[in-house]
Amino acid sequence: MIKSLPLSEVYRLLEPGPVVLVATADKNKNNVMTMSWHTMMEFEPPLIGCVISGRNHTFDTLLKTKECVIGIPTAKMIDKVVKIGNCSGRDTDKFKKIGLTPLPASRVKAPLVKECYANIECKISDANLVGKYNFFILKAVKAWIDPKAKNPKIIHHGGKGNFTISDKAVKIASKMK
Amino acid sequence: MIKSLPLSEVYRLLEPGPVVLVATADKNKNNVMTMSWHTMMEFEPPLIGCVISGRNHTFDTLLKTKECVIGIPTAKMIDKVVKIGNCSGRDTDKFKKIGLTPLPASRVKAPLVKECYANIECKISDANLVGKYNFFILKAVKAWIDPKAKNPKIIHHGGKGNFTISDKAVKIASKMK
Repeated sequence: MIKSLPLSEVYRLLEPGPVVLVATADKNKNNVMTMSWHTMMEFEPPLIGCVISGRNHTFDTLLKTKECVIGIPTAKMIDKVVKIGNCSGRDTDKFKKIGLTPLPASRVKAPLVKECYANIECKISDANLVGKYNFFILKAVKAWIDPKAKNPKIIHHGGKGNFTISDKAVKIASKMK
Repeated sequence: MIKSLPLSEVYRLLEPGPVVLVATADKNKNNVMTMSWHTMMEFEPPLIGCVISGRNHTFDTLLKTKECVIGIPTAKMIDKVVKIGNCSGRDTDKFKKIGLTPLPASRVKAPLVKECYANIECKISDANLVGKYNFFILKAVKAWIDPKAKNPKIIHHGGKGNFTISDKAVKIASKMK
């Protein structure tokens, strides 16, 4: 159902700026949050910079375990995505409550999210900016994609419940990587 | 034609992950590049983190002048966006060659790009990560938006000439900012 994606292709998942899920595991307790403040920082090994507020339960778990999974939802998951963003893992088992399926990852203890069309296993590469900016630099160590997902419609967050869906694919000859 | 946008609203322009233009001015020589590796880092004052390769002419100008304008193009500008990404300001006057109109900004010497539906005037806030990651932290000091642009269709880059257009707006009740 999923296949390994070369790490050199990871930037193509995150560069378009989708809303993503960040899954963590503290011992065996899985949790997941939504995130839109992220950017690619290097092609290979892929480095991903992201801001996670200290108010999020994931902040503590990520700092403690030093690893997470970034899952990329498609438009059909938008109601689940909003629900994930509107409750906290401190008092809620979000996987169970919202109907998400954790799958074992290969390089980290955090789970893959089965419903996402792609999942990226990450380890913290640099936590020096966490104190000042809540900014984590993650290194992708393994990535997975649903080979049947062609031009998946991804979700972008524009604040205050406003979302847009990437609904139209365009190919233009370009020298850009 | 354009109106001032409160700085507290700037995150709503960048959080969805559009391809943006970065305009700079070295003395009176305007230049512009495309960028997709950016993230919001703080709501207000708005901080924007972005990676600009040292191979780009903009890298040198931004480091020297410490300011730039981030312009956000709409889907109808996609051919211009690709052209901007496929030539260099070292040997090309991109505004003239590609047909872009520079407008004076209010707080920086870099120009606004008239064809963009929104423009954000920025100054470098933190250049400490430039050496290691080519990562600039910018502070938005003034923002402008075309008040007629409702649900503008923005462009996302998925690598290798693959773009998607945010073509569908969705509003869902959410507690998320």
